[in-house]
Amino acid sequence: MNKIGKYEFVAEPFHCDFSGRMFLGHLGNQMLNAADFHSTDRGFGMKYLMTINRSWVLSRLAIEMEEMPSQHEHYTIETWVEGAMKFFTSRNFCVSDGNGKVYGYGRSIWAMIDTETRQPTDIYSIDNGAINAWIVDDKPCPIEKGGRVKMSGNDDLVCTIGVNYNDIDINGHVNSVKYIEHVLDLWDIDWYREHHLKRFEIAYVAEAHQGDLLNFYQEQTGEGEFCVRLVKSDPTAGVQAEVCRCKLLFVDG
Amino acid sequence: MNKIGKYEFVAEPFHCDFSGRMFLGHLGNQMLNAADFHSTDRGFGMKYLMTINRSWVLSRLAIEMEEMPSQHEHYTIETWVEGAMKFFTSRNFCVSDGNGKVYGYGRSIWAMIDTETRQPTDIYSIDNGAINAWIVDDKPCPIEKGGRVKMSGNDDLVCTIGVNYNDIDINGHVNSVKYIEHVLDLWDIDWYREHHLKRFEIAYVAEAHQGDLLNFYQEQTGEGEFCVRLVKSDPTAGVQAEVCRCKLLFVDG
Repeated sequence: MNKIGKYEFVAEPFHCDFSGRMFLGHLGNQMLNAADFHSTDRGFGMKYLMTINRSWVLSRLAIEMEEMPSQHEHYTIETWVEGAMKFFTSRNFCVSDGNGKVYGYGRSIWAMIDTETRQPTDIYSIDNGAINAWIVDDKPCPIEKGGRVKMSGNDDLVCTIGVNYNDIDINGHVNSVKYIEHVLDLWDIDWYREHHLKRFEIAYVAEAHQGDLLNFYQEQTGEGEFCVRLVKSDPTAGVQAEVCRCKLLFVDG
Repeated sequence: MNKIGKYEFVAEPFHCDFSGRMFLGHLGNQMLNAADFHSTDRGFGMKYLMTINRSWVLSRLAIEMEEMPSQHEHYTIETWVEGAMKFFTSRNFCVSDGNGKVYGYGRSIWAMIDTETRQPTDIYSIDNGAINAWIVDDKPCPIEKGGRVKMSGNDDLVCTIGVNYNDIDINGHVNSVKYIEHVLDLWDIDWYREHHLKRFEIAYVAEAHQGDLLNFYQEQTGEGEFCVRLVKSDPTAGVQAEVCRCKLLFVDG
């Protein structure tokens, strides 16, 4: 089996935004699906991991797109493991039209947790370090790695929403991509008419669950550059905790 | 070309809910995508219609599921035009595993509008009534048609939300399925743990746009049966209008 997984998709019209370009959230979910197809076919997918009380947890995701596929266009997501350490693996993505035109790239970092203790576990313990057989370290992924999202503290609470049924995925907590969608909803269509989202980066800190409130704190950190941190509050317990931080770069488009 | 379109999908894990079953909203979008693939291949798809200032507008949708596909399961959506009149066509759906097991069915009614006047136009005017060549009137779709959703007026305002970027599709107004998702979010995971959504029915009245507020009025009309009407309010113009009505039937599950 090839070390690089390659999956074909179509930009279905009802997964496209007002401009006929695919929603970034939908692309993000297809990247996660491609990651799961790739790992399932190679013996370390989530469905198998659930049987041994393990799960992959997305720790960071960065997506950088020159262009988004338009409705009805076919696109290909290639995904591969770039490296593995005891507690983290890095997995990359390339989104192309399958004929040499690259739409963009993604970089992700994953931890493996024990689903009972929610603590990180040793990735090499799965099938005697089998993941090492799948590492591809010579395929380029020419976008920057995600770093720490630094914010000055001069951010504004711009939005608060509740967590609902459709936000929760098979892991029992808010789907990683739902945060991205909620953050993208902080800008309106007039903004998207004039700006292309070149890069979206998210670092996950804690999980949010149904019943939590998500508070969005936003700060502009450069020209077209915004950082957003999400803080969950549990209205019954009265506790607050940071859930994730995002950094967005818009360019004129 | 076959009159019935048949499209293969996979229940991708990140389109599944906490229980590992596909979200109804995602299935609804795939039905709309299948409808568009079917009509595009036969010369009356939305992308073509846009070039002549026409568009399909979904008027009613009813989905009745015995069971939802689980993560990683392959499923097939068949779709066909059951009938056409001057201003409406009826299009049906069958969701199966492709090997004889039927998950459920869908029924939909579509109007064709002039995208400039937003008024209904004559469907037969497209390519000299070509749609008549595609009618399949002998394939069964053994679920009830959607009817008027009757409410007593004793309903409660249970939720108000704003319309955001991710709600708007290529038609420039709220995506038909987003209403379904927002309505399903009125129930929590504990409810879904104990109930299976057997039937969901929605009748569209008017379009909502970015900036509108959506008010959800809910009424229980029977055992496991609920009706919800959505009323949009434009905070700047101060006007209110009904957007759609839904009827849901939950069974113990």
